[in-house]
Amino acid sequence: MSNRTLKLGANLSGVGNSMFHWRHPDMPTDASVSLSFYQEQARIAEQGKFDLLFIADGLYINEKSNPHFLNRFEPLTILSALAAVTEKIGLVATLSTTYSDPFTVARQFGSLDQLSGGRAGWNVVTSPLEGSAKNFSKAEHPAHAERYQIAEEFLEVVKGLWDSWEDDAFVRDKASGIFFTPAKLHALHHRGTYFSVQGPLNIARSKQGHPVIFQAGSSDSGKDLAAKSADAVYTAHETLVEAQRFYQEVKARAVAYGRLPDDVLIFPGIQPIVGRTFEEAERKYKEIAELVTIESALDYLGRYFEHHDFSRYELDAPFPDIGDLGTNSFRSTTEKIKQEAREQNLTLREVAIRASTPRGSFIGTPEYVADLIQQWFEAGAADGFNIRNVVPTGLKDFVELVVPILQERGIYRTAYEHDTLRGNLGLSVPVNRYTASLA
Amino acid sequence: MSNRTLKLGANLSGVGNSMFHWRHPDMPTDASVSLSFYQEQARIAEQGKFDLLFIADGLYINEKSNPHFLNRFEPLTILSALAAVTEKIGLVATLSTTYSDPFTVARQFGSLDQLSGGRAGWNVVTSPLEGSAKNFSKAEHPAHAERYQIAEEFLEVVKGLWDSWEDDAFVRDKASGIFFTPAKLHALHHRGTYFSVQGPLNIARSKQGHPVIFQAGSSDSGKDLAAKSADAVYTAHETLVEAQRFYQEVKARAVAYGRLPDDVLIFPGIQPIVGRTFEEAERKYKEIAELVTIESALDYLGRYFEHHDFSRYELDAPFPDIGDLGTNSFRSTTEKIKQEAREQNLTLREVAIRASTPRGSFIGTPEYVADLIQQWFEAGAADGFNIRNVVPTGLKDFVELVVPILQERGIYRTAYEHDTLRGNLGLSVPVNRYTASLA
Repeated sequence: MSNRTLKLGANLSGVGNSMFHWRHPDMPTDASVSLSFYQEQARIAEQGKFDLLFIADGLYINEKSNPHFLNRFEPLTILSALAAVTEKIGLVATLSTTYSDPFTVARQFGSLDQLSGGRAGWNVVTSPLEGSAKNFSKAEHPAHAERYQIAEEFLEVVKGLWDSWEDDAFVRDKASGIFFTPAKLHALHHRGTYFSVQGPLNIARSKQGHPVIFQAGSSDSGKDLAAKSADAVYTAHETLVEAQRFYQEVKARAVAYGRLPDDVLIFPGIQPIVGRTFEEAERKYKEIAELVTIESALDYLGRYFEHHDFSRYELDAPFPDIGDLGTNSFRSTTEKIKQEAREQNLTLREVAIRASTPRGSFIGTPEYVADLIQQWFEAGAADGFNIRNVVPTGLKDFVELVVPILQERGIYRTAYEHDTLRGNLGLSVPVNRYTASLA
Repeated sequence: MSNRTLKLGANLSGVGNSMFHWRHPDMPTDASVSLSFYQEQARIAEQGKFDLLFIADGLYINEKSNPHFLNRFEPLTILSALAAVTEKIGLVATLSTTYSDPFTVARQFGSLDQLSGGRAGWNVVTSPLEGSAKNFSKAEHPAHAERYQIAEEFLEVVKGLWDSWEDDAFVRDKASGIFFTPAKLHALHHRGTYFSVQGPLNIARSKQGHPVIFQAGSSDSGKDLAAKSADAVYTAHETLVEAQRFYQEVKARAVAYGRLPDDVLIFPGIQPIVGRTFEEAERKYKEIAELVTIESALDYLGRYFEHHDFSRYELDAPFPDIGDLGTNSFRSTTEKIKQEAREQNLTLREVAIRASTPRGSFIGTPEYVADLIQQWFEAGAADGFNIRNVVPTGLKDFVELVVPILQERGIYRTAYEHDTLRGNLGLSVPVNRYTASLA
């Protein structure tokens, strides 16, 4: 067995990532805006020695949105609050490069990184929802390709700002009155296509150098940005073969950019449902699946297709031809939905229920789920997993039942190796560009 | 004695608001980026039953900036962290309307407000520093008057977004599957001069309705914005008469806008230095004053005047004529500095030392400082005070020595009356505009 160890992230999502999880008897219905709920989840994940907490995000709602999306904490504020009550676990916030400003983003993540002692991460997204433009005084939502061009320049600026202060810039010598060395403070003077940012940034690097960069898009542009600039990638696959293909492709692209394969960690999202027996796991899944109505399943499906109204079609007829709808938003998801419907002759009802009640493969006993995780990890499909919980007690179940098995097998830590996110993920500290240029 | 009670805020500012406080033997030199330092200050202020913690801010630095400004926490992230480790104290963050987006600002303050249980406040500033534009991809820093026009529209949008959800919108009934009442969700559809924002916002109101709005500019436009839209005003005066004049003027302007005088609370900033004897207080002041060098005092003065180089002038000659420099930045401060220099025939050296070693009037024994506070409070000069600490132990001294006297005299609380900031300040909860329109 190699030294390589499995990484784990917990996706914290209040009342859940579906239209109906909030109806589960064990779910507190105000979970999405409950600090105590988030604190408890963070505590469980840190007990389970998870690498990180992850908060997804979105910038547009309407009355058909998922309940969690309607009224939830903003990622940087909730993670800053959790920073104060956790010690080792990483804190990864989603933030859009399409509707933010690089100076503010560099600064807020820099601040989270400092106050957590080097535990911040940024999941870089480009905002799939067309409606977002209307909330940000923009005439239109930029097209997919342009959003990724903006993201690339944005990320370049943010990384540059993060290097404003060399690591030994602050002398802080009371006797001489020298607080810092001016030669170790650097303005960026960036002038690009989308941004002009002088700098310097008014916060220094933490001991992990830069917050860890996550990327989540699975489109071609998304994979390219990840391979070029990200430390880790969130993805989602239903089969091992698909996951292996994605894993190999992103690592190969990273190598083509002159990086090492281990410089980009791949985190498929999984939704484990663990029971002490297969029957118990199956019962837990059914408790979830039975909460959905077909009306809300259709609404949920519509969300991926520009809030298209699917209720106008025959439920048990083949999935309708809806043309190019949604290709400027969740492109990789919509293509996949349409492809599966075509290949497997699915009806609209079947497509809607699959979309809103994802069953996934990771349902079963602790040993079964641990086996699958180990298989994906050792077969070149994953460096770690982003655990999404569909059952309210899912994270607790996973930490109590699956984690000890992974630890026994020696593929998962029994104690944190480091106190920074980058350290625990086995990623190196980026050398400051100005310090580097002198070496 | 009326029911009116004194309000207190603690200005938390890391290594301090001057060029040299960091050199004090008792000051931790990394205070500006130390979570434990901020936590300790927050704990002391909450023990002292302070209404709020206040974090100032700025968006542009260069190598001549105040040490605290060079490398400090961003206000929303540090206050979110402090929300998790405090219970009753308010959390007021400074944020600029010139270089932010109203949807993001509404959301981040809404999130801080929810996670703190209704303790958030926003100090609305327009960014005095010209250099800020260069960090935010803008061709130029808007002129003073335009910044206030932007601020007024910005604030209108943010308040509108905060009302997106009526207070009883969330039904959360598991049996019926009704999560919320669609008729109680409202899009803003704002189309103005500077912003177009559709809404709705993806976070609901906290139990205090809206975060408390502070305003800090003392220019004519600043006072007008405060009188029209703010719940509280930060200000700074050296004499009781000046403070009374300002107090009366802002209250009168508020009344002219159809508000009650008590709808806008006035918080002069003071820098108390408390000793058990006058000699001890004087010694504490001297320890601070002796840390400054004339070079850094000139640098600090230059900061108010577009980083003008004052070292080129004769130190002991009258304060030089520098024309209109700085009038588009810290207008009220620069006018005051020039006026005092003229009226009192001050030399450049005297002006520089005054600017960087503010002595203020609130230096003395606990009884003396309590007397002054009570005098200002009862003479119509202040509803509360924003306590800036120039001595590292200043907040602790104040809480231990002055607070008990104010409590004995019955003008200050011995326990929090409420658990929201608005509640403790005695401000009413704003009725939701959509709910109100039905009444």
